Amino acid sequence: MGGGFVYRDLGRSFSEWFDWVLEAAEVYDYGRYPVKGMGIWLPYGFKLRKFVIEIIRELLDSYGHEEILLPILIPQPILAKESEHIRGFEGQVYWVTHGGFEPLDVKLALRPTSETSLTYMESFWIKSYKQLPKKYYQVVSIFRYETKATRPMLRVREVTTFKEAHTVHEDFEDAERQVLEAIEIYRKFFDELGIPYVISKRPEWDKFAGALYTIAFDTLLPDGKTLQIGTVHNLGQNFTRVFEVRIQKRDETIDYAWQTSYGISERVIASVIAVHGDSKGLVLPFKIAPYQVVVVPIFREQDRDKVINYAMGIAKELSDKGLRVYVDLRDDVRPGEKFYYWDTKGVPIRIDVGSKEVKESSVTIVRRDNGERVKVKVNEVYEKIVELGKRIDMELRERAWKAFKSRFKRFSGIDEAKKFLEGGGIVEIPWCGNDSCAHQIADELGAEALGTPVTTIEKIEVKGQKCPICGKDAVTYMRYSRRY
Amino acid sequence: MGGGFVYRDLGRSFSEWFDWVLEAAEVYDYGRYPVKGMGIWLPYGFKLRKFVIEIIRELLDSYGHEEILLPILIPQPILAKESEHIRGFEGQVYWVTHGGFEPLDVKLALRPTSETSLTYMESFWIKSYKQLPKKYYQVVSIFRYETKATRPMLRVREVTTFKEAHTVHEDFEDAERQVLEAIEIYRKFFDELGIPYVISKRPEWDKFAGALYTIAFDTLLPDGKTLQIGTVHNLGQNFTRVFEVRIQKRDETIDYAWQTSYGISERVIASVIAVHGDSKGLVLPFKIAPYQVVVVPIFREQDRDKVINYAMGIAKELSDKGLRVYVDLRDDVRPGEKFYYWDTKGVPIRIDVGSKEVKESSVTIVRRDNGERVKVKVNEVYEKIVELGKRIDMELRERAWKAFKSRFKRFSGIDEAKKFLEGGGIVEIPWCGNDSCAHQIADELGAEALGTPVTTIEKIEVKGQKCPICGKDAVTYMRYSRRY
Repeated sequence: MGGGFVYRDLGRSFSEWFDWVLEAAEVYDYGRYPVKGMGIWLPYGFKLRKFVIEIIRELLDSYGHEEILLPILIPQPILAKESEHIRGFEGQVYWVTHGGFEPLDVKLALRPTSETSLTYMESFWIKSYKQLPKKYYQVVSIFRYETKATRPMLRVREVTTFKEAHTVHEDFEDAERQVLEAIEIYRKFFDELGIPYVISKRPEWDKFAGALYTIAFDTLLPDGKTLQIGTVHNLGQNFTRVFEVRIQKRDETIDYAWQTSYGISERVIASVIAVHGDSKGLVLPFKIAPYQVVVVPIFREQDRDKVINYAMGIAKELSDKGLRVYVDLRDDVRPGEKFYYWDTKGVPIRIDVGSKEVKESSVTIVRRDNGERVKVKVNEVYEKIVELGKRIDMELRERAWKAFKSRFKRFSGIDEAKKFLEGGGIVEIPWCGNDSCAHQIADELGAEALGTPVTTIEKIEVKGQKCPICGKDAVTYMRYSRRY
Repeated sequence: MGGGFVYRDLGRSFSEWFDWVLEAAEVYDYGRYPVKGMGIWLPYGFKLRKFVIEIIRELLDSYGHEEILLPILIPQPILAKESEHIRGFEGQVYWVTHGGFEPLDVKLALRPTSETSLTYMESFWIKSYKQLPKKYYQVVSIFRYETKATRPMLRVREVTTFKEAHTVHEDFEDAERQVLEAIEIYRKFFDELGIPYVISKRPEWDKFAGALYTIAFDTLLPDGKTLQIGTVHNLGQNFTRVFEVRIQKRDETIDYAWQTSYGISERVIASVIAVHGDSKGLVLPFKIAPYQVVVVPIFREQDRDKVINYAMGIAKELSDKGLRVYVDLRDDVRPGEKFYYWDTKGVPIRIDVGSKEVKESSVTIVRRDNGERVKVKVNEVYEKIVELGKRIDMELRERAWKAFKSRFKRFSGIDEAKKFLEGGGIVEIPWCGNDSCAHQIADELGAEALGTPVTTIEKIEVKGQKCPICGKDAVTYMRYSRRY
């Protein structure tokens, strides 16, 4: 990985580590399925995915979004209706051309995203400002015939966990308010997962095809490259105009409605894995761990029943109280191997019980993230675990943010910035607003432009700063990084 | 619907009623999406679907199934590997032939079902009897390029709610045990939803393509036709042999593993709607209703705040205790219209509160299914609703079974059976076991063979019965109905 910076010692390059951990922890089977860029969510990974999706669903529901489900197939004329949109996607759309032995009259796209098909339906559904704002979402598979090298979860051809939200508004101002709401929702979401991020307005040349502008969330992977993990688009009237979504407005005039859309994908799950994991495997936040607690009974033959009963009693209490608990009763596996196994799977808390613990009415609690061990009385174990769970999630988040911030820095000149970027990360450099200057800076850095700070949520001070290329006064900063 | 029998008066033909209710209750938008046979789950329908899926997930999990997610696309050579299978499906597969502007090297099928792709993966995953039995499932979209007339939810080209389970076993006996387990799971599932059914072994000519045999659940729609709502297949070693899933057995020999698979689809949701609904709209079981209770405050201007506060207080208590409650506060809609609206949506229980109820500290509870009204004290409302919810579900089930049984009858001759079938339903006729006799009976009845009773779960007495075609001794009964 080219001498890249690593957040923590993964014992190997990030790329190798990531492939290893997905397989070793039985999260995602990739590379064996006979279609390039497509993988299988295994039972353990599927559970992890489920708990992550639950968080975003709860958030969206609490902000008044309604879940729907649209067909996977979009007829070519619908997908092509908005000219910028189709130009952006046509190179990477999978086309269905035959049904059975017959060629289809109209070829059908596997949806790359659903702005077109949903807006088409909205033209039937939405007639008046009284119905607005309207906020829909769905969690679905989307398809991109990627030409770049595919990577498990990070760049796939079937994105299996695309949460796309689509909203409709009476005017531009309300769409702008929605963009900020979407940003707030995603901040809360990433904060819950302890994933650090920077929020940037993508440069014109890198916005979503068909949008007025795009706001993006990027995180930093252990190899020092940024990964886009969420985007928010103000679509203006671009789609409602071509699909003729006309509404009656408050003032009784008729106009096209306004829209936003915003999406996240399984890259969020990849980020949780990448940002918190260590050389031993996954390190999962308590909140989303498939099992939050694993109980490992340790015994010799003569105290077997006593220890197992004790372990089962504790597990039952914890799961009756709503925790996700697994008791590892395997007979043919030694305790040391079990520790190793559950470390790889990233279970946040391990409870060891042996005959000593039975005698003392205690348990030994071991944290996955930092290895801390503590003995507690058996009647305090539930409270202790709930408290520890919260503390683990908080500390994981803090640790991740600390590492992230150490690799995010502002520079006035290109040379120091370039030196900094050798260790991975993101730099901010004053920008005059001229595209060609940004391109030149990117080239000199050997990096790509990420975008500018979002001035509606950040206060930006550029007074006295000059563009290092043309020397003109800077109007903002441009961010650069090596990108996935 | 051709003079067909109706379970209850829907005020119009079932077909018209069904289209109407999906639209009026905002369940599913069908017929406007620009791809034939594909519809959209609207927010209300999506919630209904979610609660139905939750029940089957809980059941499968409790029987040791693990949820996974496989890619949607299956390469042609994988799909075609099992010859019976591809012969059964090739006429109705959607093919992806292009990615972007390029033709693909290998054409890719939108999965019609996942036996082939999963068995391919199992050849990597499963090596020993120690891993068995293994029970996987997924809830996904599948695709069938249907040549028959499409109907919303009943016969679609994108089946959006396909729950397919796939299991692996050491020997034939364990696969047989799994078939019975699957039947038990589906019985529980349909019983929870109050959907009556008959369980039949499909005739040889109608089994799943690639199976040893198929067991099917059929229910009866209000037009008197049967609808297949679930199938269970013993796959034998047909797929493991071609994909070389070899396992080490308990006796240390190596052999191909054995498999079963079983599936249900949104036809289950269609059945809930069709079996319980009435002329006013949906009648939903309490367990799966998106809103279990709707509170309608009824007031004049002078007591507005008092009544609304009272209504909100009740709603809060009920939802704090875990019920799904909606308060209809719309200002521009009269109470009568609200009653009509929520009747259409099938909310099982309505709570009316007016100034009289406030004064008396009471509420008026109205059942959707039978219109029964009862006044209860406000401090008893939660207990009353929980009790009513259970009673409603029980009575819906009993009513549906009673109607179903009235249209299921055994005959020894064809003429009486034919007369009975004019009113819709299912008949059983003695069968000698000869296919041509069954075909001839079906022709004479103007019906189709559904299959034979499942003798492992039903005791069948055929002594003295004769096949009405050839006159030979019957070995079992064959069931016939008009089928969807």
